[in-house]
Amino acid sequence: MIETKTTDVIEFHFDFASPFGYFAAQEIDGLAARHGRSAVWRPVLLGAVFKETGARPLTEIPMKAGYARHDIQRTARRMGIPFQMPSPFPFATIAACRAFYWLDALDPEAAKTLAKALYDEAFGKGGDISSAQSVVQVAAGLGHDAGQVEAALKDPEVKERLRAVVQSAIEREIFGSPFFIVDDEPFWGHDRMAMLEDWLQNGGW
Amino acid sequence: MIETKTTDVIEFHFDFASPFGYFAAQEIDGLAARHGRSAVWRPVLLGAVFKETGARPLTEIPMKAGYARHDIQRTARRMGIPFQMPSPFPFATIAACRAFYWLDALDPEAAKTLAKALYDEAFGKGGDISSAQSVVQVAAGLGHDAGQVEAALKDPEVKERLRAVVQSAIEREIFGSPFFIVDDEPFWGHDRMAMLEDWLQNGGW
Repeated sequence: MIETKTTDVIEFHFDFASPFGYFAAQEIDGLAARHGRSAVWRPVLLGAVFKETGARPLTEIPMKAGYARHDIQRTARRMGIPFQMPSPFPFATIAACRAFYWLDALDPEAAKTLAKALYDEAFGKGGDISSAQSVVQVAAGLGHDAGQVEAALKDPEVKERLRAVVQSAIEREIFGSPFFIVDDEPFWGHDRMAMLEDWLQNGGW
Repeated sequence: MIETKTTDVIEFHFDFASPFGYFAAQEIDGLAARHGRSAVWRPVLLGAVFKETGARPLTEIPMKAGYARHDIQRTARRMGIPFQMPSPFPFATIAACRAFYWLDALDPEAAKTLAKALYDEAFGKGGDISSAQSVVQVAAGLGHDAGQVEAALKDPEVKERLRAVVQSAIEREIFGSPFFIVDDEPFWGHDRMAMLEDWLQNGGW
């Protein structure tokens, strides 16, 4: 139901606490459209995956932390988009994910718009999207009914949908953010989008 | 003496056991020349750095291992270059590094040629470059005197030169391979070479 595996889509997996997921979110729909594809957005909880791989957020690893923070800032400057590192970081994303999957079942395009607004709040403005209230507020800002969103975040069906997506991501070895799958071919990282586009252009190597 | 920090060079740090270092080695001199720069090659012992960061080779990390091996193979196909994963992998590179720094002090261009031949033996042909004999053999194939290379590998001055380079790399937080520094700006990874080139083209962002 959640897993989409048709040949004309690009699966775009990301974590709401991933700066490089935020960057990829600005570009993936345009990239897909240039090649007659559409992107299916799939936020995941990387914390659950990191338990399997023993990985830690880049920004917590000795030496890599300083580089990562610098690289993130210059990538935003290069892209010419607003960027502010949220504090605290990393942060909980379970409410953001649940809101996404609630809406995705009703209207995938609206869910993308919500995801972009959540990313913009977190990394465009450096705001907090870790709590249920903050997620409800962002959704309400897009015209969604606050009470309905609040209820959705507690809905066992929505929780189960997210759980199934994360379980599937672990089984499919989706271990980072952003992580793309196109024609069964995996691409990990914002800096792999050029390679992904080359793949779409030239049909693989 | 070893550390080069003028404004017209690109420092290219790599580990002889790094497949992405092998890929970068094919491209860095051409990239530098396109922008009126030259590349200074600096092999390092990443094992020493990994002790500081707690990192492991990509190919040993759960989930990432399978992806990394696949990504390495397709990158080689995309570049249209010979590639064979050496076995065992990873392997010791101290002899290769010592031979490099011995020659680098005499003739940096000849040292680059040796580095390329060593990389070609390891990743182009899947051969073994971990032992002193194998390194001597590759060097002899380029016309160097086998006895002289053998002596160089045991030369305390050469050993000290390598030790100093690795120490400096740790201090400068060079934690991966390939790792480039240009105008004090660090770029990590073969897939960051496009960004590095954009930096040279547009003078930073």
